[in-house]
Amino acid sequence: MENVKVAIWGFGAMGQGMAKMMLNKKGVEIAGICCRNAARQNKGMYEILGVNGIQPDIIITNDVDKAIAPKSCDVVLLCTDSFTAQAYEKIEILANKGLNVVTIAEEMAWPAAQQPQLAQKIDDIARKNGISILGTGINPGLVMDLLAVCLSACMVDVTGVMCKRVNSLSPFGPTVMREQGVGLSEEEFAEGLKNHTVAGHVGFAESIAMIAEGLGLEIDGFEQQMQPIITDIDRKSPYGFAAKGNLAGVNMTAQGTKNGKVIIDMYHPQQIEPEMVGVQTGDYVELAGTPPVSMAIKPEIDGGLGTIAMAVNCIPHVINADAGLITMLDIPVPRAIMGDFRKLIKDGKKVAK
Amino acid sequence: MENVKVAIWGFGAMGQGMAKMMLNKKGVEIAGICCRNAARQNKGMYEILGVNGIQPDIIITNDVDKAIAPKSCDVVLLCTDSFTAQAYEKIEILANKGLNVVTIAEEMAWPAAQQPQLAQKIDDIARKNGISILGTGINPGLVMDLLAVCLSACMVDVTGVMCKRVNSLSPFGPTVMREQGVGLSEEEFAEGLKNHTVAGHVGFAESIAMIAEGLGLEIDGFEQQMQPIITDIDRKSPYGFAAKGNLAGVNMTAQGTKNGKVIIDMYHPQQIEPEMVGVQTGDYVELAGTPPVSMAIKPEIDGGLGTIAMAVNCIPHVINADAGLITMLDIPVPRAIMGDFRKLIKDGKKVAK
Repeated sequence: MENVKVAIWGFGAMGQGMAKMMLNKKGVEIAGICCRNAARQNKGMYEILGVNGIQPDIIITNDVDKAIAPKSCDVVLLCTDSFTAQAYEKIEILANKGLNVVTIAEEMAWPAAQQPQLAQKIDDIARKNGISILGTGINPGLVMDLLAVCLSACMVDVTGVMCKRVNSLSPFGPTVMREQGVGLSEEEFAEGLKNHTVAGHVGFAESIAMIAEGLGLEIDGFEQQMQPIITDIDRKSPYGFAAKGNLAGVNMTAQGTKNGKVIIDMYHPQQIEPEMVGVQTGDYVELAGTPPVSMAIKPEIDGGLGTIAMAVNCIPHVINADAGLITMLDIPVPRAIMGDFRKLIKDGKKVAK
Repeated sequence: MENVKVAIWGFGAMGQGMAKMMLNKKGVEIAGICCRNAARQNKGMYEILGVNGIQPDIIITNDVDKAIAPKSCDVVLLCTDSFTAQAYEKIEILANKGLNVVTIAEEMAWPAAQQPQLAQKIDDIARKNGISILGTGINPGLVMDLLAVCLSACMVDVTGVMCKRVNSLSPFGPTVMREQGVGLSEEEFAEGLKNHTVAGHVGFAESIAMIAEGLGLEIDGFEQQMQPIITDIDRKSPYGFAAKGNLAGVNMTAQGTKNGKVIIDMYHPQQIEPEMVGVQTGDYVELAGTPPVSMAIKPEIDGGLGTIAMAVNCIPHVINADAGLITMLDIPVPRAIMGDFRKLIKDGKKVAK
């Protein structure tokens, strides 16, 4: 079998990380890279990545038709957007080229949660073209949804789900600092909330819908909140600074309710330098029911590497899947791939032959 | 759609637990019960279970052809054996009746590990009859294999896997006390090892094979060990007693190696009353690589309830699966079922119509 061929659309930190990961794997190769960033136009991927490799170099271009032609690859990793509405047009282009898609757009982890009509359109176009489309990532995609679902398998009954992700924003760059309100005063934060310039975490509606649908919990309400995390000491990270009295980040919370009672409870405080104030990072799942399950991952799973790995590791599952819009609940348990990607592809499922 | 219909073969603690669980679920009903235990012959399931329910009573019989007829159910929960060689004959009978099978026989979680020829025969007979056969349970089936596989999905590279399950044997009955050597002197244990009367944990070969195959780790060696856990104080549980100097249980360990180096490392000490000597129970997964993942579940997931739930919760996945011998790596992520079982069955997959 020929190598599994993968194109990448969006070549920022995530797309580049996926490329580096795949360059070190067996039976998979990069078939094209589309990126709008002017600084990367017409440059080779090895130059941008700062690494050497044995597969032929790929020239980066903003012209998607040049970068990603029909049958040029088996799957496209789409790393350009967070929201379904923005990702939709690109998904449509790729589906019409007959290519499978893995996207890390957070809302695409369960697009029916906030964009049911677009989700239906995506499913239709995927089926029409005989390809499958999956949204994944570390969160949504694993730590605050799929992992809770998987752990629930050992339970006779589930009466409540609590997921908490306490992480550090210190490794992240200026975009994340801005989106998470790092360094803002309380007044600036209040303004940012109004203007939607402080995004906070995107994905609660999707994670809660995935858990509720997965377990059959019949949630009938959803709410989310964003609170400032005010620091009482100065905190400094490579790309962020929060003076005493200003925001070190934001604490996002959400609830899935049934008849007004909280059934699924989410906590996701994100801040720079949590260790400075004695906050230990970690991922937590508490499942109430029979038997109860109390899980902790300390420290939290690295968000950047985690998202990169989730996307690449789902490639065979997406190529193998039946046509349509699929979710993490439809595919077999995702897993690291230390062997040859080609061995994981079912007969007749390759697009690029 | 009619209810999902489930027969049970083997009506000990596990089979009875599955029956109780299903009696409290929507869209699923018990279609037959086969059990060889003389004390349960020709009795109704409600009498044996000590509960009331709305579905018609089922009379327990040792005659499998009477209890489980072709098209009488969609799936059979087989709860009679630990080893593939012993379960094989029953699996063959059920497959030839055209019925899907979920078994908690530990070796059936990955029968190719120790019985590759039988695994092939089971796959052949399943395909011939258009049904699927799955082995599952809490361990093997989830905590020392599937959970590690699932967590690895967020990893770029995996260099080592460590799974540890530290549990209490105190809730278990006389059979488990005997199999795990509780109360034996060191001499009796040495004798029991020789005679194979001390079984210890069954499933390491299967768990290691599942992880190795799942992640593509290319293990070339496997070893396991059983060491006595000698108590330095008297310990007493409802069904066990270990005098000072005798066995409170056994510590089983296993390694999957590659070129002599340990890649997958397993620890599974089981004993009565671990709290008396300050041992905290729990399930642990440590994944070395990028990024590393360190997970703990405290206390450990209840083994009895966990196995009951895993079997019942996998029912829809097994009915929906393509024909053949399948494993936990082939089906979608398992999950608790709080909704209607019928909603989870794909079109055309029901056997009992």
